[in-house]
Amino acid sequence: MESYRVAVVGATGAVGQEIVSILEERAFPVGQLIPVASERSRGRTVSFRGEEIPIEPLRPGIFEGVDYVLSSAGSFVTAQIAQEVAAAGAILVDNSSQFRMEPEVPLVVPEVNGHALRNHRNIIANPNCNAAILAVVLGPLHREYTIRNLFVATYQAASGAGNRAMTELQDETVALLQGRPHRNTVIPYQYAFNCFLHNTELMDNGYVAEEWKVINELRKILEVPDLPVNVHAVRVPVMRSHAEVIHVEFGSSPSVNELYDLLGNSPGVAVFGSNGWDAAGLGPTPVGVANTNDVMVGRIRRDHTSEHHYDIWITGDQLRKGAALNTVQIAEMLLPVSTCCV
Amino acid sequence: MESYRVAVVGATGAVGQEIVSILEERAFPVGQLIPVASERSRGRTVSFRGEEIPIEPLRPGIFEGVDYVLSSAGSFVTAQIAQEVAAAGAILVDNSSQFRMEPEVPLVVPEVNGHALRNHRNIIANPNCNAAILAVVLGPLHREYTIRNLFVATYQAASGAGNRAMTELQDETVALLQGRPHRNTVIPYQYAFNCFLHNTELMDNGYVAEEWKVINELRKILEVPDLPVNVHAVRVPVMRSHAEVIHVEFGSSPSVNELYDLLGNSPGVAVFGSNGWDAAGLGPTPVGVANTNDVMVGRIRRDHTSEHHYDIWITGDQLRKGAALNTVQIAEMLLPVSTCCV
Repeated sequence: MESYRVAVVGATGAVGQEIVSILEERAFPVGQLIPVASERSRGRTVSFRGEEIPIEPLRPGIFEGVDYVLSSAGSFVTAQIAQEVAAAGAILVDNSSQFRMEPEVPLVVPEVNGHALRNHRNIIANPNCNAAILAVVLGPLHREYTIRNLFVATYQAASGAGNRAMTELQDETVALLQGRPHRNTVIPYQYAFNCFLHNTELMDNGYVAEEWKVINELRKILEVPDLPVNVHAVRVPVMRSHAEVIHVEFGSSPSVNELYDLLGNSPGVAVFGSNGWDAAGLGPTPVGVANTNDVMVGRIRRDHTSEHHYDIWITGDQLRKGAALNTVQIAEMLLPVSTCCV
Repeated sequence: MESYRVAVVGATGAVGQEIVSILEERAFPVGQLIPVASERSRGRTVSFRGEEIPIEPLRPGIFEGVDYVLSSAGSFVTAQIAQEVAAAGAILVDNSSQFRMEPEVPLVVPEVNGHALRNHRNIIANPNCNAAILAVVLGPLHREYTIRNLFVATYQAASGAGNRAMTELQDETVALLQGRPHRNTVIPYQYAFNCFLHNTELMDNGYVAEEWKVINELRKILEVPDLPVNVHAVRVPVMRSHAEVIHVEFGSSPSVNELYDLLGNSPGVAVFGSNGWDAAGLGPTPVGVANTNDVMVGRIRRDHTSEHHYDIWITGDQLRKGAALNTVQIAEMLLPVSTCCV
């Protein structure tokens, strides 16, 4: 069986670590794994198929002979990575926001718009975590019932700000419980036992950058450039799964059971319990989906004020479908047919 | 100065304790305080104006000679309390949901519909915590701009489920951080580092009881029986303040500054920082408003998809404006003019 040289950039970060795990878990045909990170990670290793593979620093020529570069570096370093990847003739699947909105760069959630990969020019963008988790549910809904309007309130986890934010949330929680002061360096708010407007740049129109990303990216993934979509982004003290309240208006009036049937049969989506609730009357939670692949849907109901509006509660692992899993799924679609995978 | 005999029922609970503090803090003209609780609290005391006052068990005749009964008992005991209060000729301000929707019982947020107190028949209902926190903001907005449609996603704290839920969240968090198992007895989910659909009874229409309360109560307080309002209730691991994402359609198109001006001049409401953000670009948080009285408003913005829609983020102390403060404010309005208060 053919195999490939795969570089993972940001291999010591929360998303990079998850990419390495998922490559192994899904038996991606890796001939050689090259874990790449910044100078700070020199001397560290990553575990892959029982081996400890040394981290390599980013340097000119690092991608020579590499087939796929799966990157979760920040936007700043990403432009440099892209040049190196292009020079080496490799393909870049990029988690940063650097290229997502460039018209010639496909922005892909494989279950929804895998066809967009066809015309790539060696860079494919992986969406914002909320956009990916939302798209896998909204894609089939839009295809079947046409979304007329969409409002989303998010409940976002620490993992979206990386390993350091997750550690900080834990350390701050311990400090608070012990009555000790704690100074955050990653998140500018008290995060333990608190929630707050997403801490990305405030724009002139009153949105924060995180919200604007989700709006633009959903429009691109769903291929509806003028989709009326609005997002309100909030971080909650949860470790690694996002949840979203979806308030959506359709062009028609499907029954709740029709919606559950559709989503239950859609790839990448699972319906929680029996029609959104389990026997104990409990719904899906972020903790319940941590370390799993499907986006979980619960408590779909009709908005009692409107014939065409519905409320939906979804939750998905931010590091998996929100980032690393989607990245590896994109790489799988790039492989020649029959080479891949689980 | 005239003074009154005031009984506080549920005096050892989270809301009852807060009522006692607020009576003292606001110099309510209490001649005698009678703290009442269940048999389980026998032998305990509450602190009031530097004295330790013994808890009295609920018993026939307990309210003889009492002027005001401020109650935060569960709905089950409340019917019995109401009979005792009526027999004693006292006035009941009740925090349970027992009487809220009875047509002859005023349901009051003093800043919004204090006039509804005029025709009370010795029972006044205090609203659900979300309804009170929302109403103090929505009241002036509706008066000025007419709410055409309203969708609310909640971020609700543990205090809404009482002292035991707050302790449980803390204990469970410690256990999780130490890698020990923990069995919850109050909240049926993992609550630490998690969020979940509000754990009240699921209704046939797909709503949970908590949501339906907020819908009905907002309609009654705002005096718009057919107000198109929809609520999605979620608990987050926060101790004592609720936050709410408000997605609202008005009959007109005020500017964001007009909205901040109106709310900044409305009683019971404060605008965070300079127009919703502070100098560091941070917004209001539940932790920031804990133990304060005003509902804090932040990041009002126009929905970019619609001329008449706006997004608003508010947060208020669940135990204060959401319960105890509003209860004491109602009692203050019942006092003869000039008797009261801070």
